Amino acid sequence: MDSIAQRAKSLEKELIETRRFFHQHPETGWFTFFTTVKIIEKLKSYGYTLKMGRDIMVADARQGVGSKEALDEALLRAKKLLCPEEYALLNVMEDGLTGVVAELDTGRPGPCVAFRFDIDAVDVTESKDLAHRPFKEGFRADIDGIAHTCGHDGHITIGLGLAKLISEHKEDFKGVFRFIFQTAEEGTRGAVAMEKAGILKGVDYLLGAHIGFQSKKSGGLICGVNNFLATSKFDVTFHGTSAHAAGAPEEGANALLAAAEAALLMHGITRHSQGITRVNVGVLRAGEGRNVIAPNAFMACETRGVTTELNAFMKEKCMNILEGVSKIHSVGYRVKDVGGTSGGDSSAFITELYEKVALESPFIEKDAIVKTCDFGACEDFAHFMQAVQNQGGQSGYMMIGAKLEAGHHNQCFDFDESCLVTGVDLFLRSAYMLSAK
Amino acid sequence: MDSIAQRAKSLEKELIETRRFFHQHPETGWFTFFTTVKIIEKLKSYGYTLKMGRDIMVADARQGVGSKEALDEALLRAKKLLCPEEYALLNVMEDGLTGVVAELDTGRPGPCVAFRFDIDAVDVTESKDLAHRPFKEGFRADIDGIAHTCGHDGHITIGLGLAKLISEHKEDFKGVFRFIFQTAEEGTRGAVAMEKAGILKGVDYLLGAHIGFQSKKSGGLICGVNNFLATSKFDVTFHGTSAHAAGAPEEGANALLAAAEAALLMHGITRHSQGITRVNVGVLRAGEGRNVIAPNAFMACETRGVTTELNAFMKEKCMNILEGVSKIHSVGYRVKDVGGTSGGDSSAFITELYEKVALESPFIEKDAIVKTCDFGACEDFAHFMQAVQNQGGQSGYMMIGAKLEAGHHNQCFDFDESCLVTGVDLFLRSAYMLSAK
Amino acid sequence: MDSIAQRAKSLEKELIETRRFFHQHPETGWFTFFTTVKIIEKLKSYGYTLKMGRDIMVADARQGVGSKEALDEALLRAKKLLCPEEYALLNVMEDGLTGVVAELDTGRPGPCVAFRFDIDAVDVTESKDLAHRPFKEGFRADIDGIAHTCGHDGHITIGLGLAKLISEHKEDFKGVFRFIFQTAEEGTRGAVAMEKAGILKGVDYLLGAHIGFQSKKSGGLICGVNNFLATSKFDVTFHGTSAHAAGAPEEGANALLAAAEAALLMHGITRHSQGITRVNVGVLRAGEGRNVIAPNAFMACETRGVTTELNAFMKEKCMNILEGVSKIHSVGYRVKDVGGTSGGDSSAFITELYEKVALESPFIEKDAIVKTCDFGACEDFAHFMQAVQNQGGQSGYMMIGAKLEAGHHNQCFDFDESCLVTGVDLFLRSAYMLSAK
Amino acid sequence: MDSIAQRAKSLEKELIETRRFFHQHPETGWFTFFTTVKIIEKLKSYGYTLKMGRDIMVADARQGVGSKEALDEALLRAKKLLCPEEYALLNVMEDGLTGVVAELDTGRPGPCVAFRFDIDAVDVTESKDLAHRPFKEGFRADIDGIAHTCGHDGHITIGLGLAKLISEHKEDFKGVFRFIFQTAEEGTRGAVAMEKAGILKGVDYLLGAHIGFQSKKSGGLICGVNNFLATSKFDVTFHGTSAHAAGAPEEGANALLAAAEAALLMHGITRHSQGITRVNVGVLRAGEGRNVIAPNAFMACETRGVTTELNAFMKEKCMNILEGVSKIHSVGYRVKDVGGTSGGDSSAFITELYEKVALESPFIEKDAIVKTCDFGACEDFAHFMQAVQNQGGQSGYMMIGAKLEAGHHNQCFDFDESCLVTGVDLFLRSAYMLSAK
Repeated sequence: MDSIAQRAKSLEKELIETRRFFHQHPETGWFTFFTTVKIIEKLKSYGYTLKMGRDIMVADARQGVGSKEALDEALLRAKKLLCPEEYALLNVMEDGLTGVVAELDTGRPGPCVAFRFDIDAVDVTESKDLAHRPFKEGFRADIDGIAHTCGHDGHITIGLGLAKLISEHKEDFKGVFRFIFQTAEEGTRGAVAMEKAGILKGVDYLLGAHIGFQSKKSGGLICGVNNFLATSKFDVTFHGTSAHAAGAPEEGANALLAAAEAALLMHGITRHSQGITRVNVGVLRAGEGRNVIAPNAFMACETRGVTTELNAFMKEKCMNILEGVSKIHSVGYRVKDVGGTSGGDSSAFITELYEKVALESPFIEKDAIVKTCDFGACEDFAHFMQAVQNQGGQSGYMMIGAKLEAGHHNQCFDFDESCLVTGVDLFLRSAYMLSAK
Repeated sequence: MDSIAQRAKSLEKELIETRRFFHQHPETGWFTFFTTVKIIEKLKSYGYTLKMGRDIMVADARQGVGSKEALDEALLRAKKLLCPEEYALLNVMEDGLTGVVAELDTGRPGPCVAFRFDIDAVDVTESKDLAHRPFKEGFRADIDGIAHTCGHDGHITIGLGLAKLISEHKEDFKGVFRFIFQTAEEGTRGAVAMEKAGILKGVDYLLGAHIGFQSKKSGGLICGVNNFLATSKFDVTFHGTSAHAAGAPEEGANALLAAAEAALLMHGITRHSQGITRVNVGVLRAGEGRNVIAPNAFMACETRGVTTELNAFMKEKCMNILEGVSKIHSVGYRVKDVGGTSGGDSSAFITELYEKVALESPFIEKDAIVKTCDFGACEDFAHFMQAVQNQGGQSGYMMIGAKLEAGHHNQCFDFDESCLVTGVDLFLRSAYMLSAK
Repeated sequence: MDSIAQRAKSLEKELIETRRFFHQHPETGWFTFFTTVKIIEKLKSYGYTLKMGRDIMVADARQGVGSKEALDEALLRAKKLLCPEEYALLNVMEDGLTGVVAELDTGRPGPCVAFRFDIDAVDVTESKDLAHRPFKEGFRADIDGIAHTCGHDGHITIGLGLAKLISEHKEDFKGVFRFIFQTAEEGTRGAVAMEKAGILKGVDYLLGAHIGFQSKKSGGLICGVNNFLATSKFDVTFHGTSAHAAGAPEEGANALLAAAEAALLMHGITRHSQGITRVNVGVLRAGEGRNVIAPNAFMACETRGVTTELNAFMKEKCMNILEGVSKIHSVGYRVKDVGGTSGGDSSAFITELYEKVALESPFIEKDAIVKTCDFGACEDFAHFMQAVQNQGGQSGYMMIGAKLEAGHHNQCFDFDESCLVTGVDLFLRSAYMLSAK
Repeated sequence: MDSIAQRAKSLEKELIETRRFFHQHPETGWFTFFTTVKIIEKLKSYGYTLKMGRDIMVADARQGVGSKEALDEALLRAKKLLCPEEYALLNVMEDGLTGVVAELDTGRPGPCVAFRFDIDAVDVTESKDLAHRPFKEGFRADIDGIAHTCGHDGHITIGLGLAKLISEHKEDFKGVFRFIFQTAEEGTRGAVAMEKAGILKGVDYLLGAHIGFQSKKSGGLICGVNNFLATSKFDVTFHGTSAHAAGAPEEGANALLAAAEAALLMHGITRHSQGITRVNVGVLRAGEGRNVIAPNAFMACETRGVTTELNAFMKEKCMNILEGVSKIHSVGYRVKDVGGTSGGDSSAFITELYEKVALESPFIEKDAIVKTCDFGACEDFAHFMQAVQNQGGQSGYMMIGAKLEAGHHNQCFDFDESCLVTGVDLFLRSAYMLSAK
């Protein structure tokens, strides 16, 4: 074991404790108040300069913020978990401007190396099965309906461990390090608002990772994730006119039929020859009574594409469909964007960087290194990644193997915590490669 | 005023009290427990022979019975309104076998003349506006969400007044009189189950009426309502397979699209050259999440036709559509019949009978008599009417004008109570015409 | 037999000859050149003042005129059948301004009584079966593909017979008589263009009739035809973009799918509570090759309604549908109106007039008189009828019973020629009733 | 130049003549009578053993054979081009059993190496533009509507040149050589019927190629074509019931709407996560008249998939759709398979073989060698290829660069004839590599 590995290994107990602490108090979406406060306190103690609230986020650019009721409930819960002297921080976060950006300037000229970690949980009620370790060992979520079943508790933990070690060995480095703790990754709702606030300004390298995808055993690494799908999430409401279905159906404007037709047409958008596209109307709710021409309808929709352009193609077709069915059925409609992110590929440079560090790291089995994979799904990281690439920087995303007890988002999800040390080790090596003095 | 008119008029105060009593305690659907008990008690006191529960109803043939929770709630409320000694009657009504059939045999050979009155209220919260008489004068519904806004409180009242007068003057008549107090008329859910139990056996004449349709002023009469629409009400549930909309959409079986297509196709069933047809999918609910192929869907549907045959044509086409979309989208489905009645026309004989009594009655303005009208809507009476006509009898339905404060089913619905006397008068005259000794 | 009946009866042989002459030389649509010339010559010989060509028709308002090739062919055929000295008349008719309006002024003040007779044949190849009388007796159509299988040959004949008798007995009458010989009734393409040219100016009464509808035997009469359906006939062409269906389907704009969707949506236009509506896409042709995104599509459409307003409702919905699908599928489209007429009912006054003459006429069996019928179909007469009613006049349409060998438009259609005398008799009686000196 | 190159080069003049000869007399589909006779005569003269007609084809397994009229016309044309003594061969080909399989047995044990060349032309009228070399130099197609605009004239030529050289140098080889001259490649209609007759029995290696795809200049090679799309071509006819669209629309069974719905649904088949899929309804023809419920409809359809399984998925969904719409609209339907082939990838072994010969050949520019490409389209060769791979053999397909004047199937298509020598050279080198004594 070289000194990097030793440093990471030495944190093991602390990392596991940290992970279990966050696991026990999950929060979702934009309302990760408690989580953010706790991250801030740690980062402060490591000597980082912090930015929060409106300094890291264009409030109006946030998507899928959630209801006032949900906000109040989340705030109340956070306050119960915090001491009154910590309440001041909550004010900065207003109605959900959670997450934090931390910076460490070495004082020496050099690149700006950024890391991004996502911090929000999922709308799942965690298992109370005795075979489920978090329950058995007492760190199950302290609330029903919310749980860290996607591993973001591990991501927070790796980020904090890495921040600590870089700070402790600040003298080894040049340039600037920036840590982005992002919320609302689920639903790909968070990256756009942060990016618009300029938090990527000056970033030369942006590194990201996810734990656990590699399934049956720990020790593997996918060095470069490609084929992120760009996506748009949007809600559609139709506004028609009710009428008695027998007495005067012609006086109605049927929102149910408009929605039904739009759903069928969206699913029928022509296949695109340039690559993967997807579309789904996942929810449709319409009408008020059996004998009434339905005056309203709601649809929850999403499009995807293997590039941002292909996703835009799908979205545009959906918009045409809505305009058309609106005309046909004489109904009004409104579209509300509630999420979305970019597509793209990891920079080849970062993929190779990750491959190099994997070959060096004692925590990675050499025959379990996979150079690249086609993701075929969505990650809010892709929006940051594409923005950095567009400004001339390099960005990439790796998947750190971890044995899982159940699939992501499953109520029994749990991961082999050895991946926490591995994650810190890999990122720390990357930092040395990119920015050693 | 002749003696018939005088008798009706003499009941006026009692009729108004009775109407307001039932108005204050509305019940809906099959759960008209309190209402039925109170009707039973009156009819008993008039000397009628009564049949109830399974004797007047094929329990399994009931449509749209309602949930166990609603049943329990309705029973609880009825018990609160009743004295314990009245509870025994509730047992006969089991889980909602409400309504009652009363008979008076004159002992003299003669026809069987039947009357039908509907007794259930509507799912509406009655107004608390000071201008609303039931509220102002203290007989507004004692519960929110249920109200007699269709005038069935008036129908009960007319039925009880008529029963009283016929019984008091039994010596004037020959043959048998039968009174059908039917529940679950709203949603056309009640007639089929009663008819199947044989309650129309031997009926030569069946008379029915509705109050209020004639709008702006009292004193008018439509003697024969024709063009009742037959109808079928049914719920459809689709059962598909969920799948990740991006990861493996092909593993799903999309119930949302199946329902959407079925809705469009049902609305597109070809117009029938033989008369009015209608179809509506009034409610569609499908799907579980934006990024999930929707595994389930629900639709509330209805068809109508100016004859029972035309309605059957529409229903059959709907069934073909469901079978077809099930095949296309690889989803299962189930159809649940929740209501339905027949179509048809009043017998010309009864229309003329009503015209004659209208010309005689001092409560009807002669220039406000309309011979017939095309109803173009549904009434559960039509099922009874068609059954009597099919067994060789005569049946018809009149509309008794009454000034209304607001339209039927509106929260401010109220009617000029003078129509109660008019109704008793018209039916009593009819009884004399058909069955005087 | 009174003198009117005797006069009609005396024409019998001539009427049959005339009918067979026109039967043998059928022409269709706007290209009834020979037919018009022959009618003109007869009317001239009876002393009528004639108007033709642009004097009775707004050329641009004609619908479904037909191709230049068809015109040339029809003209060539007419010339072969005519003598060169008759060619001059053809010039007046230009590219199909056929038909003629004849007037007889009695010189005495009185009403303007108009009669309308339609003169065009149908696109059917007449039977050569030996049992088919026109074939057996040598007056079958002299051309394949065109035949008088709707009885308009009989209508021409009745019109000419009536014109002759009125002229011969001019001294009996007052006012003015106008005879409208209209072409392009089939497809309801002719009335609008004539009406727009003002040919109904001053008309107080407009009488029309059809022979044969009453089926199995002769001798009956329907006095007043009601419920004419208004109709619009229109062609739609869609213009998209072709693309290779495998290589780059997204580059196409699919006209086939646009048309398919429009067809389904048109058939799904909501039923109207105010009366009969119809819609049909009878023809759809789209696409160029199996592996090409279809760049074009054609649809032949029609709407109908029991009133002009209901038909307009259907047409407007169709136009909305076209605009909507055009947007959805990014295709252009064009609508070409190719026919259409009004709806409406016969004036009660004329229905009663016809009933009176029927009761007088020895050619009508009294127990075969039907007061009114609901037509439920389209007749170009309705456009004239509605126009006369709108200007304060009276107009009606009767159906003169005639035993038929086969249904209208069938290749074996033939009628009992006794109806010719009956038709002349009924119209002549009507003339006396309306306008005797 | 090595001896292989010299031999190929020495044939140059003959190859060009041969190509232009076949170019001038194009035939399509199964009716390549003249073409086959001329190929047979050459192969005979080189000493090959030939099989024809029913020996190389299961007649009933042929797809898209064409009409009797087209057959008669093609035969008549072939006879005009042939001498009477050549007519005998035509009998063997019956109603279109064209194409030929030739074999040369070296007498020495060794592998069976097969080559496949396609011989049919395309339904295109060749250009008469003076800039179009075939026209300018007098070898344009001798008929309008048929032309060698896909380069199969070049394929025949390369095949014959190769056959000649192998035969001339028979002593250099071991094993058996088999030449498959296949017709009806266009529309992927021919391979299945030949494969079913057993013509691939014993084949160890099957080599194929196409000229010209590499576009702007000659001298390049794509060594291994992958991602052949499997495809199914099928026609659908719907059989409904006509009815008058106004008089009795309910008596009809609307085939037009059934087809319209099927077309929309087919285009809406869900995207498959395992790879490329395609579907197209390229032609839809339905209905007989504007006012008639359309009793019939026709659709020309195709599905594709990047594997045989994915294509089967699409086809199965289409079949479900047809069954469903048939039920919904009460119409019958029939599906006629008219073409189809497999998907798949070239064997890596053959791709490497082609790369080796390309590196050796003086006619290929080394920097214009591309290892593999994703085809994303259909080729009937894939069916043979998959069959050989399934029986344990190796098969691959290269694309030989040739400068083109216009795209494939364009009326101005023409290619740089230097590719003929190149093609012979590459195949001959392959033969030596696989089967040198």
